[in-house]
Order: sequence, then C-alpha cells, then structure tokens
Amino acid sequence: MSAAWDVLYTNVHLATMVEGYGELRCGAVAVKDGRIAWLGAADDAAAAGAAAAVHDCGGHWLTPGLIDCHTHIVHAGNRSDEFEARLNGASYEDISKAGGGIMSTVRATRAASDEELYAQSLPRIASLLAEGVTTLEIKSGYGLTLESEAKMLRVARRVGELLPVNVATTFLGAHAVPPEFAGRADDYVDAVCAMMPVLAEQGLVDAVDAFCECIGFNLEQTARVFRTAAALGLPVKLHAEQLSDMRGAELVAHYGGLSADHLERLSAEGIAAMKQGGTVAVLLPGAYYFLRDTVPPPVAELRAAGVPMAVATDNNPGTSPMTSLLLAMNMVCTLWRLTPLEALAGCTVHAARALGRQDEIGTLEVGKRADFALWDIARPADLSYSFGYNPCRGVVNGGVWRLPQAALAGYAFR
Amino acid sequence: MSAAWDVLYTNVHLATMVEGYGELRCGAVAVKDGRIAWLGAADDAAAAGAAAAVHDCGGHWLTPGLIDCHTHIVHAGNRSDEFEARLNGASYEDISKAGGGIMSTVRATRAASDEELYAQSLPRIASLLAEGVTTLEIKSGYGLTLESEAKMLRVARRVGELLPVNVATTFLGAHAVPPEFAGRADDYVDAVCAMMPVLAEQGLVDAVDAFCECIGFNLEQTARVFRTAAALGLPVKLHAEQLSDMRGAELVAHYGGLSADHLERLSAEGIAAMKQGGTVAVLLPGAYYFLRDTVPPPVAELRAAGVPMAVATDNNPGTSPMTSLLLAMNMVCTLWRLTPLEALAGCTVHAARALGRQDEIGTLEVGKRADFALWDIARPADLSYSFGYNPCRGVVNGGVWRLPQAALAGYAFR
Ligand SMILES: [Zn+2]
Ligand SMILES: [Zn+2]
Repeated sequence: MSAAWDVLYTNVHLATMVEGYGELRCGAVAVKDGRIAWLGAADDAAAAGAAAAVHDCGGHWLTPGLIDCHTHIVHAGNRSDEFEARLNGASYEDISKAGGGIMSTVRATRAASDEELYAQSLPRIASLLAEGVTTLEIKSGYGLTLESEAKMLRVARRVGELLPVNVATTFLGAHAVPPEFAGRADDYVDAVCAMMPVLAEQGLVDAVDAFCECIGFNLEQTARVFRTAAALGLPVKLHAEQLSDMRGAELVAHYGGLSADHLERLSAEGIAAMKQGGTVAVLLPGAYYFLRDTVPPPVAELRAAGVPMAVATDNNPGTSPMTSLLLAMNMVCTLWRLTPLEALAGCTVHAARALGRQDEIGTLEVGKRADFALWDIARPADLSYSFGYNPCRGVVNGGVWRLPQAALAGYAFR
Repeated sequence: MSAAWDVLYTNVHLATMVEGYGELRCGAVAVKDGRIAWLGAADDAAAAGAAAAVHDCGGHWLTPGLIDCHTHIVHAGNRSDEFEARLNGASYEDISKAGGGIMSTVRATRAASDEELYAQSLPRIASLLAEGVTTLEIKSGYGLTLESEAKMLRVARRVGELLPVNVATTFLGAHAVPPEFAGRADDYVDAVCAMMPVLAEQGLVDAVDAFCECIGFNLEQTARVFRTAAALGLPVKLHAEQLSDMRGAELVAHYGGLSADHLERLSAEGIAAMKQGGTVAVLLPGAYYFLRDTVPPPVAELRAAGVPMAVATDNNPGTSPMTSLLLAMNMVCTLWRLTPLEALAGCTVHAARALGRQDEIGTLEVGKRADFALWDIARPADLSYSFGYNPCRGVVNGGVWRLPQAALAGYAFR
C-alpha cells in the first residue's frame, strides 16, 4: 500500500542527526500535514508513496531546521554607544553614571510599544531565519514589571504567529533588580513570583529562567523562583556558573530543569547533578567571545559524563549582540574544541531537548515536524568550518518551503 | 549655475570617513557619470543642482563602499574535512600524510577549469557583496605554475567584469613551494620571478605579494621577488611577521610597499620603517581567531606611530575561512581593542590606501567613484558592535544601485 504525501523533497543528502550525523546520501523526505511521513533513499520513494508535489533539492544537504534555544532577541535599543565609549577609554563606572548598562535596555524596552518592540526585533530575527533557524527561544527580562514583562512575552508570541518560526517563550523576570527595587532584591523576587501565575494564566510562559550570579540573584532567591514555577507546573532553566560557581547547575538539575546555560565555572558536582537531572548544558560562546573571557566551560568533562551539549547565540545587547547561530557553531569548535558533529547536534537534537521539544523537532524522523534547512555544502562539517558565511539555500517550516532571506516587508506587525 | 546630475541619493546620514567619521546628518550625495558630483545637506541639494532621478534612502546611513584589501577568495575545494579531523584528534602530521594542508587546495585549484574556479568562488564573493563590499583584492598563490597562477588571476579579473565589484589582483606566486620544487625553494623563486613579466604582460597583475615566514620564504628570497616586481614597475605588499619576526615589514617598507599584512610579531623597527615607507598595516583577525593565536599585533604602537591600519578578511581555506568583513570589524574591536571608528576606517579609507587607490575610493568626496553602502543602523559604531549581523540595505557601485543580496543566478560565468 503506497501513501499519499503532500510533498516529496528529493535529490538531497540527509543528515538526520539520529545517532551522529545519521548521513543518508541521495535521499528523500516526504511530508504529510506538516510532518515527516517517510524518509529514505530517493530511489525507494516511488515504491513507498506518491506525492502531490515534488521539490528537487539540487543535490544539496538537508538537516533538521536549526534551533536557537537561548536568546534575548526581543528588546529595544542597542548598546553600540557603550561599546564605542569603552573602546575609547570609558570605564564601566563612567558608563553606569551615564545611564548605561542593562538599565538602558530596560528603559528602552519599557518605553516601546508592542509594535515598536516587534519592529526593532524583526531584523535580528530575520538574520537567524536566513540561516535555517526554524525554532527560537525568546526570553523576557528587560521589562521587570508585570506589564512590561507581559509585553515582551506577547511580542515573542507574535513573532511565532507572524513569522515562519516556532517560538518558545521564557519568563526571565529574575534577570536583574530594577531601580524601583534597588537594595530590595528579596522584595523584587517576591514580585517576580507574583507575576508568574498572571503571565502563565495568559499563556505567555513556556518556561521560567533566572540569572543566578554574584552580580545577579543568589541561590536562595533562585530556588524561590523555581518553587513558584514548579507549583505552576512550569519547567525551569538557569543562567548558571558564567562568572562564578554559585552551584546553580545543581539547583536547576535538582528541579529537573531543562537546561543550565553558560557554565564556564561549572564544577564536577554540577556536571554530576546535570547528568542525574537530565539537564542539558547550553553553551553560549558569543558572550565568552564578546566579554573576552578566558575560562572555557568544561567541555571534555561534560562529554565524558554524557551530558548533552546545546549551542545558542544568547543574542542580547549587552554581552552577545550576535545574530548568527552558524557563527556560534564555529566558535564552539574554534574556541572550545567541540567537534563539528557536536556543534550541529547542539543546534538540532540537543537544542530540542533543551526546550523540552525532543519529541517534536531536532531530528529528521518520521512523525516529527517537517522543519528542515537546505544547505549548499560539501559535507555537514562545512556548517561549523566557515564563519561569517551562510550556505542556506532554503528552509522548510511545518512542511512549507521558503527562501532563506525572508523579505522583512512581508512580516510587519499586525 | 546649477549642475545636472544623474541621480541624487537623499534623506540619508553620511559618514564620509574624511577626518574621523566625517558625519553629515540629513545629507545627500549627487552622482554624475559614476562619480560623486556633489554632497552636502539634503536641504541644500535643490539649490546646487538638478538630478534626473532621486533615490530616497529612508533615513539610513551611507558610508563609502567597503573594501576587502586582502583575500585568497578565488580557490577550489575547502578544508572542512581537515578541520573536522583535527577536532576529532588528528595531528597536523596525520593530515599532511593524508594529503591535506595547502597542497590539497593547490591540487583542487590546479584541477579546476576557469569556469569551475569561478563558480566555486562565487558564493563566497556574494557573501562579501551582500555586506556592502564594492572593492575586493584577490590573490593568486594556489596554482604555483605559470599556467595555473594565470588561471587564478584571469578568474579574479572575470569576477571584476561580471560582478558589481572592483577587483584588485595580486600575484602571490611566492605563497608556498610546490611539490615539484620540494627542497629547491631558491629555484622556485627563480620560477616565480620568471612568471611575473609574463603575467604582467597579460595585464593580470596589479601588485605582487609573498609569504615571508619561517614556514614560507626567507628575507633574501622575498627581496628577490620584490626586485623583480620593482623592475616591472609593480607595487609590492607582504605577508609579514605573522608567526615570527622575519623583518619582512622593514623589507617591504624599504620597497615603498603598499602594505605589510598580519603583523602579530611586528617589532618597533618594523613600525618605524612602515611609517617611513608609507606602508599600511593590514590587520587580519580571522586567521588570529581561527588559529587561536594569543599574540595580538602591536595596535597601540601602530596607532601612536601614525601608521594607517586596514582590516581585511584574509579569506582562505586554511587559516581564515571567513567571508564577512563586518565580522572582521567586530573582531579587531573585540580582540584587539581597535575603536569602531578605526575598524570602519580600516575597511574604507585605509583599505583604499593599502591598494594604492586612495585617490579613487575609500571616502565620500567629490570626484571619487560613487561606491557606497547603505545601512539600517542607529550610528556608525553599530557596524562593529554587532556580529553575525548584516544591516546592509543597498549598495551603489560606480553610481549604480543594487540590493545587497546579489542573485547568484545572474552572475554565471560567461
Ligand atoms: Zn542569556
Ligand atoms: Zn593572506
């Protein structure tokens, strides 16, 4: 009995990302109702089914659509003025006195309308979409009031509705203490915990995150956020061990967290806890590069322990104004000696797990969403090898083909 | 008396790059016969002349078209297989035994037809063109025979004829000793010197370069190449002081060289000689990053000495598979603490000087070529601040407007 498919993508080499690259040369993938209905050798397709349409992929490579599992990409303003001032000799103190730092982004984001926030974020998101990104995590955390955190999360949802990308929203109210709570971090954590059920009720929260750091929230405050999330049935993740070992990875793993992110100062105990908790290590080389950090995350130890490693852009205006997931792939290889296979797995199968969506996306397997990226490359390692280069030649999202360069004009806010 | 212009680009902020950014907000630029005929405040344009066409630039920023003054972008094959093998634990020896390294690129380039070489280089060049690059230097050096060096340079010329970009060709016969001259480097230098007049006669050589390095050619061999070039009236430049201080910068400066490139191990004597010789320092952060070098070039000393610093991609398959000049701008700021102004000057006014074309390109000034890039940015520093992001919204080459993303299909070899 042969099946009836909507479309057959053929004449293509597959990297299914099931066990290693899962290479299948001269393959084909059939799509039905936005999901993968069949895949195999191109020569076997005719016997397996009939497609209403056939798309010739020109002998290129097809991978799962890329997944950027850690971004702060919805925000207003940028901080290029601070970047320039610092390089011209200004100190962090000078910049802080001039109203710079994260609070300048908070002010701009609070002041922006939903529409402005969307419009300012759109070119950054388009940059990721041009690279075959089909799923994108977006955090709040520059509002720091119920109203403005809700606005950020609404805009993130709107991105997923208006653009050809799946969006996972994360509530990061515990990102920084806003000026109106200066010196009262515990009170602000109470406020964050009070926001959470309201935002969750509005369907705006897929997961909850916090910034656990010597310059952020302490372990007790973070635990308070996590307890509130757990009571609401929301999964948690954590900015952990970037600047100091706060034992945040152990905490988030204890809560069965989706991921612990950054991890430059992760301890052996943290690794063991993550392994135990099934918590993904999300590596963020953009911030390491931009901040000129010199302590890499314990990649060899994570590898040895069998903790899955994801890779993301961490797009944000302060420490990682980067909008290329392919560049992040090169950076984890060049700077931290991940292999090209680990880098690609980090943006597909392991990134899916970091979002709790491993049953839906991240590999090419029958039953999963038909989210693909098509690449003009000689082999999958090319994606990590070159930098500042985008070989993407097409993207399929939920079975629907598009060219990589989404015309921005077509995606205005409405 | 008011002038008659072909086109007026208006409603635009100008960074003329004449003395610093040379900012002129709410400006306009008039073009006549492919050159800048007038520029000034938009409000003054009507009194100054009349244009056959008006192009509204939407309040974006206009800079001189970017100039990538050091590339090996015309080559065949890539080395992602070596990149992957190394990250999987292979030694340089293993790779060399397996036929890898520069000789694998030489073999692939020798084997390719003009058309294949062009087709393989085109997507890389398109990546630069999408970022507002209007002038591109292209070196030979993967042929290492008269016939195949001529092929590389012919293809480079063809790029300049078929694509909307100005090409400067550089003969780099003294890039490596080919296998047929193994152990006979001096004989190979003789062969290079013999190729030079033939290639020059064919109009294929705008400048002559060499790889002066502990693993390349020594100072005496380099001097021999330079003497031959000088006799032919060809300007010289040099790969100098990347891995060791060979005193190459002093040599190229002594010949009044256009540029000394790389320079991580440049001495105070080298800096003084470059100042004296009017030789530009071309900084190549891509190779530094990709090779994980830890010794930066002496930026503060070059700045103090008043040696102009240019910035380029060094696109090549072995040590800098990078096709983004904007990323190079971010890298020189992030890794080497150049200012955003220095980074932009390095890809415009100083890059023009590194090609000996400072009278033609590199700034927005009346009489120069109408080569511009249009950017959706808040301020010029944005170009260096974000990375993996391309805010280019249009390019003007010789007065002719194009969208950044050149459709590759339109530029097939013919
Ligand atoms: Zn983050
Ligand atoms: Zn070079």
